[in-house]
Amino acid sequence: MTTVLITGAAGYIGSHVTVAALDAGYNVVAVDNCVNASPGDETIPPSLQRVQEITGKTLSFYKIDLLDKESVRAIFSKYNPECIIHTAALKNMAESVKNPLPYYRNNIGSLLTILEIMKEFNVKKIVFSSSALVYGTPEYNPIDERHPVGKTCTNPYAKTKYFCEEILKDACAADKDLTAVALRYFSPVGAHESGRIGEDPLGPPSQLMAIICQIAVGRRPQLAIFGNDFNTADGTVERDYIHVMDLAKGSVAPLNKMNEDPNYKGFKAYNLGMGKGYSVLQLIKAFSKESGKKIPYTIGERRGIDVAQLFAHIGLAEKDLGWKPRQTLEDMCRDTWRWQSNNPQGYRTSK
Amino acid sequence: MTTVLITGAAGYIGSHVTVAALDAGYNVVAVDNCVNASPGDETIPPSLQRVQEITGKTLSFYKIDLLDKESVRAIFSKYNPECIIHTAALKNMAESVKNPLPYYRNNIGSLLTILEIMKEFNVKKIVFSSSALVYGTPEYNPIDERHPVGKTCTNPYAKTKYFCEEILKDACAADKDLTAVALRYFSPVGAHESGRIGEDPLGPPSQLMAIICQIAVGRRPQLAIFGNDFNTADGTVERDYIHVMDLAKGSVAPLNKMNEDPNYKGFKAYNLGMGKGYSVLQLIKAFSKESGKKIPYTIGERRGIDVAQLFAHIGLAEKDLGWKPRQTLEDMCRDTWRWQSNNPQGYRTSK
Repeated sequence: MTTVLITGAAGYIGSHVTVAALDAGYNVVAVDNCVNASPGDETIPPSLQRVQEITGKTLSFYKIDLLDKESVRAIFSKYNPECIIHTAALKNMAESVKNPLPYYRNNIGSLLTILEIMKEFNVKKIVFSSSALVYGTPEYNPIDERHPVGKTCTNPYAKTKYFCEEILKDACAADKDLTAVALRYFSPVGAHESGRIGEDPLGPPSQLMAIICQIAVGRRPQLAIFGNDFNTADGTVERDYIHVMDLAKGSVAPLNKMNEDPNYKGFKAYNLGMGKGYSVLQLIKAFSKESGKKIPYTIGERRGIDVAQLFAHIGLAEKDLGWKPRQTLEDMCRDTWRWQSNNPQGYRTSK
Repeated sequence: MTTVLITGAAGYIGSHVTVAALDAGYNVVAVDNCVNASPGDETIPPSLQRVQEITGKTLSFYKIDLLDKESVRAIFSKYNPECIIHTAALKNMAESVKNPLPYYRNNIGSLLTILEIMKEFNVKKIVFSSSALVYGTPEYNPIDERHPVGKTCTNPYAKTKYFCEEILKDACAADKDLTAVALRYFSPVGAHESGRIGEDPLGPPSQLMAIICQIAVGRRPQLAIFGNDFNTADGTVERDYIHVMDLAKGSVAPLNKMNEDPNYKGFKAYNLGMGKGYSVLQLIKAFSKESGKKIPYTIGERRGIDVAQLFAHIGLAEKDLGWKPRQTLEDMCRDTWRWQSNNPQGYRTSK
């Protein structure tokens, strides 16, 4: 059975990717430093405990920091993973502007540690959680993988993703046996259908769906919409939301491809998105319908930084990896609400 | 007396910058890990011993690795430097393609360590040795500082310089009291006029002037010129060579500016070059004249990667820093030759 090392496994993306990897029959070694994941009193964080319950499978968990090379080496030495799915990162965009150094230190440093240790142990496969933010302001829609990257990244978080892709590209150029797959995530929302795991921001959320959720459970009064005069169907901005379980399956898909096709080498980048945009008002409407909650909002001035539309071309992931998203906007809203209403305080909610 | 911490001080650029800083009356703490600098048996590397002889001044030297945060902290704690001139870096472009990870690890990691420790000690001034390579393939000549950067960097070494500039930019955006000056060096050649310090590549040199030097002293038979059908005066490619002592003075100039002008804050980038191009044949001719040595060469096919012309616009450094280059191509050749003929084996030459 193929062993996969998943970093950042206790986080929102990581925990869902872990479900998908276990469901697909992989043996999972999960690591996390738990700085953004709610830790329990137990040796394994609550998100990953629940992953085991959901899947009926067990995993190995280690609380380690990826900047600590010795700890990473010990994991490789003990488990000899065949592939790494590297989802770990600091991810708060606004914080990255205020305090950029930890973002560069952690996000670049952790990838370098992993690549260095992979080299030591002759491990040749890595899947990297990148972001659609590498595209910056879109020059056209749908954005395909040939769209320029790195030119207009607006915050240090986005730049770390771009820099990491470049490092992976250069590592592949230097080692022809390496396969590095960068997955450019669009806007992941939703939760596992069990409602047992989901997004659990420790600070104030900055993502639209997370804010809507907190309004629905009464933790915030209303949503501020910045502008309804964009050149879109209803005037509010459109983004490409994708169900986190679709994205998780898409993050495991490269493993299958790497195992099946020995010629699948080098640096690859894929968009993981729905391939279409949903407006702020569409999202509110769909969420209200699924949750039965009214979401009050105000319309304010544009912020100047927002572009009207941003959505992915997803044909390449389907062609190469046989992956496409299956879940609808209604699924995203329903599953988000199931998680949120069952766990209004996230993993701090009892049981 | 203002204390300046100079990193990579034992190297080619660093040792000349140290001369310029001592000449300008600064108190210098010099650090180097000596991986690329010829170490002597003494506690201070030969290049910096000679810097002391040349200037008639003393400096403090520490052999430390900038990835070792504790060592850097100890230096800051002992000397409380007001400014850092950060010249330390791995710099072999060809090697960076073959083995990129140490380049990212060292060049980004060392800058991050310095910025983190600067924050701890409330130090607000840094001068960074960047490179004209951040411009990639020039879209026009002369290249001014508004020319796009990072778009066409052709090797990991160049990318580390670009990434470091972006990190400095973001650090300045987050801390309005910070001044970070990135100096985009064109092609430094020459040596201190004393002939006591100069470039001492440990491996085979890749720079044109260093190769010419080795031919002049009989360590190589001839020069291979790749193409003489470029759109330039004599058909060979033109580059912007600058005397290393001019460049060293230009690297110290921002310190004066920072001390004089309290409003000089934020990220700044300046070209340090001659502001004009010299062709391969011009360089050979000038070097032959100064050295009295014939430089045999062959003309081969273009390599495909070379652009015809590349030279700097240098008006901004003159305007802001009051700096401009003073030495001629003849000076560059004469001083290179004086260093090379007096020290045919570099610092391994006795005395």
